Amino acid sequence: MNLQTLPIILLVVCHAQAFQYAQLAQYIDDHQEEHVEALRDWVAIESDSSNIHKRPELHRMMEKVAEKLRLMGGTVELVDIGEQELPNGQMLALPNVVTARFGSDPGKHTVCVYGHVDVQPAKLEDGWATDPYNLTDIQGNLYGRGTSDNKAPVLAWIHAVKAYQALSMDLPVNVKFLIEGMEETGSNGLDAMILAQNHTFFSDVDYIIISDCGWLSRRPALTYGTRGNCYFYAEVEGSRQDLHSGVYGGTVIEPMTDLIGILDTLISPSGKILIPGIREAVAPLSDEEWKMYQDIEFDVDHYKNKIGVGQLMYNNKVDLLAHRWRYPTVSIHGIEGAFSDPGTKTVIPAKVTAKFSIRQVPDMDPATVKKQVTDYLQSVFAKRRSPNKLTVTMVIGAKPWLADTQHPLYEAGKAAIKRVFNMEPDLIREGGTIPIAKTFQDVTGKSIIMMPIGGFDDGMHSQNEKISRYNYIEGTKLFIAYLNEIAQIKTSV
Amino acid sequence: MNLQTLPIILLVVCHAQAFQYAQLAQYIDDHQEEHVEALRDWVAIESDSSNIHKRPELHRMMEKVAEKLRLMGGTVELVDIGEQELPNGQMLALPNVVTARFGSDPGKHTVCVYGHVDVQPAKLEDGWATDPYNLTDIQGNLYGRGTSDNKAPVLAWIHAVKAYQALSMDLPVNVKFLIEGMEETGSNGLDAMILAQNHTFFSDVDYIIISDCGWLSRRPALTYGTRGNCYFYAEVEGSRQDLHSGVYGGTVIEPMTDLIGILDTLISPSGKILIPGIREAVAPLSDEEWKMYQDIEFDVDHYKNKIGVGQLMYNNKVDLLAHRWRYPTVSIHGIEGAFSDPGTKTVIPAKVTAKFSIRQVPDMDPATVKKQVTDYLQSVFAKRRSPNKLTVTMVIGAKPWLADTQHPLYEAGKAAIKRVFNMEPDLIREGGTIPIAKTFQDVTGKSIIMMPIGGFDDGMHSQNEKISRYNYIEGTKLFIAYLNEIAQIKTSV
Repeated sequence: MNLQTLPIILLVVCHAQAFQYAQLAQYIDDHQEEHVEALRDWVAIESDSSNIHKRPELHRMMEKVAEKLRLMGGTVELVDIGEQELPNGQMLALPNVVTARFGSDPGKHTVCVYGHVDVQPAKLEDGWATDPYNLTDIQGNLYGRGTSDNKAPVLAWIHAVKAYQALSMDLPVNVKFLIEGMEETGSNGLDAMILAQNHTFFSDVDYIIISDCGWLSRRPALTYGTRGNCYFYAEVEGSRQDLHSGVYGGTVIEPMTDLIGILDTLISPSGKILIPGIREAVAPLSDEEWKMYQDIEFDVDHYKNKIGVGQLMYNNKVDLLAHRWRYPTVSIHGIEGAFSDPGTKTVIPAKVTAKFSIRQVPDMDPATVKKQVTDYLQSVFAKRRSPNKLTVTMVIGAKPWLADTQHPLYEAGKAAIKRVFNMEPDLIREGGTIPIAKTFQDVTGKSIIMMPIGGFDDGMHSQNEKISRYNYIEGTKLFIAYLNEIAQIKTSV
Repeated sequence: MNLQTLPIILLVVCHAQAFQYAQLAQYIDDHQEEHVEALRDWVAIESDSSNIHKRPELHRMMEKVAEKLRLMGGTVELVDIGEQELPNGQMLALPNVVTARFGSDPGKHTVCVYGHVDVQPAKLEDGWATDPYNLTDIQGNLYGRGTSDNKAPVLAWIHAVKAYQALSMDLPVNVKFLIEGMEETGSNGLDAMILAQNHTFFSDVDYIIISDCGWLSRRPALTYGTRGNCYFYAEVEGSRQDLHSGVYGGTVIEPMTDLIGILDTLISPSGKILIPGIREAVAPLSDEEWKMYQDIEFDVDHYKNKIGVGQLMYNNKVDLLAHRWRYPTVSIHGIEGAFSDPGTKTVIPAKVTAKFSIRQVPDMDPATVKKQVTDYLQSVFAKRRSPNKLTVTMVIGAKPWLADTQHPLYEAGKAAIKRVFNMEPDLIREGGTIPIAKTFQDVTGKSIIMMPIGGFDDGMHSQNEKISRYNYIEGTKLFIAYLNEIAQIKTSV
């Protein structure tokens, strides 16, 4: 081979790629409104997986996903993953998981894109400025429950594939989809399904991509770790039914007083977890980690201003990032069964259930956490000598996940981000939980990457959740570029 | 006067009264179904005064009361008592007070019957066995929100007057009605109305009768005291909006943790109020009181079984009755703004408001209690060094009330009970609050009696509130008999 010709060939290849990307990116820009309408259509479905009364909506949502993929010519399956047992012992059908396949060229890599289309609860009365199920565009931000978490990212992946199809370009890799509907309550039934299909659906999968998180700042990011989550119900039960606080107050030991008393022993005012054994299990912070956190772009003042608080739990960047990503924390979410409406009600609630969760990190173990929390609360409760009954249940036990940032998947990610955004990404962890990441890792043994397109201020799980048109549309282009980059990964790696 | 004739005259008088009562009682029995239908009609209106969204229903309820009294030929007024200020500063029209007059014979005593037709909140999901707004008769018990508290007693008084009219019998006393629609939230606006009409509506009133409570056992009772109520909101505000507990947990000081922390300092596991100054203000229990409680018919085991608890705050009758009637207590009713629905939500609520109340007794003073609670909670909160903001508000400050059981009104009550039920009543106090009793006493200077007809197990303020047909119908007869007994009271007393 004449060495003189080599640079020219490479140039041609690079040029062809660049050209292809520009066409695809243009296609996405030209179809922006259509993609926004597709999101509106999905947001309109109240696919709240935590509310059993919304289960029919959730079933409808999964059908809609399947239909969209079918219309694109994918090989689509609706996989029955069985039932869930409710706290009262009743059984309820889980939403089907949607799997789809585009391309089966054995000469190409195969990626599996994971996403979910269930959402967190949302009501206008919670303080939303707009109807959470009616997508509302305000200055380029698309407001609605589930926009950023996770409906727009799922659609962006689908639209990335569609762009290749529309321009009659071969997909550079085979693309599979696995879309579920129970992520927000801990991906019930999905572990078993992955285990069952490990040697079928997953047999030809090389890489698993998850886009169910957000950037840390305006700089695009790649995510290499998430915290797990142990979600608890602590139920205190007293009288047979609610009592009038005037008529009975002073004669009964009130369940609410007991519940407040035990909840108050979980965490100190300064954020120290008081449950014995939890802090001891946490992997120590290494010097390398400390250095890595130090280098990340993160504006503490901006973070404070964004969420509107005058003072955070810690004042410096490293402590904040570390406690956000790799230390556990306890959050008390609320109490079911007590009076929670506006106005005054003079009631002694008969049965009250606190909901709290512990974000979990290496080297904590959910089974151990369950025992630590249950034993601790029961011992604290026993000291009160109350005649009421305490029942502690762990309803979610999702493990944390960590990836190797040196893996070619991450190098490919950096290249795609460079192409679309012309900058280096932050390498970040996620304080939230994507419960299934750890299962993918443990069961399939495949390499996993998290490639977020959500904005840093999208307000996932809060009022006024949104995704910007910028993140949604440029994010779609990122996925297009990323498919190309993955195709370049050498199989020997 | 020939002494020989005296017994004969008295006999004739007694005979005439007995005859009259029997006819009236028979009329009530004959019209039982009609009276139950009247109650069904009233229960169907969700006149919840604590929920501002139900205010139109409440207005409709007051109209209905006025219409019923008008059709009976009463002189009826709908009195505008102005507006209430909501926590957000908005103004909302209060429901009119209904006043009515039947008879204005200056030779007769004039009684004023007070009652209310607003109700506590109730939803089927709270655990009702039947629709709370559809009166349901199960084995002679009439289930529905507001049946016992206070719609059936108000109707019983109206039907008592109607019976005299139907049988063309003169009312033995002039009867006035004062029916309000804000009792459950502290009788907003009524104090000012009583003050304004003290020299008009109240000028010819001799006695005020309240039937807004229940018996202690199956034995009829007369009530001579009620506890007051100081109802508080403690609001802790942190971030601008709710946050995802995964994404932000560990970096922010959570309002919910702060709120739980301060609530836990209100009361000890054994029921001791920890707010400095409260216990010190309570009038000591006298030997006479102790003796009186000792003599009251009260079955501790039955009380335990009824509410379904294995152990009460105290094991003996006197301690239980004393802590029910004449000692203060703290009840935590619930938290607004936190996650209270079924299911799991991983939220850090931005603003949470605890609702708790302190039942208040002589010699406590609401203004002092307000300061004691606010100062105490703010000092406890300050020690937490939290950047969140605590706001403590007292939204109800209703005073306790005590009557003289030697007053002829009570003697007349005993005689009426003897006639209808053929037994002596229990003389009891009420743990709950009838806020207006103290105002009637202080402003009008009139003597007041509480004559309950609610059953001891009616479940006021809880799920499955009911009144029995027996209490409703025999209660109506009691009111008929009581009007006769009041007519016998010598004016010189």
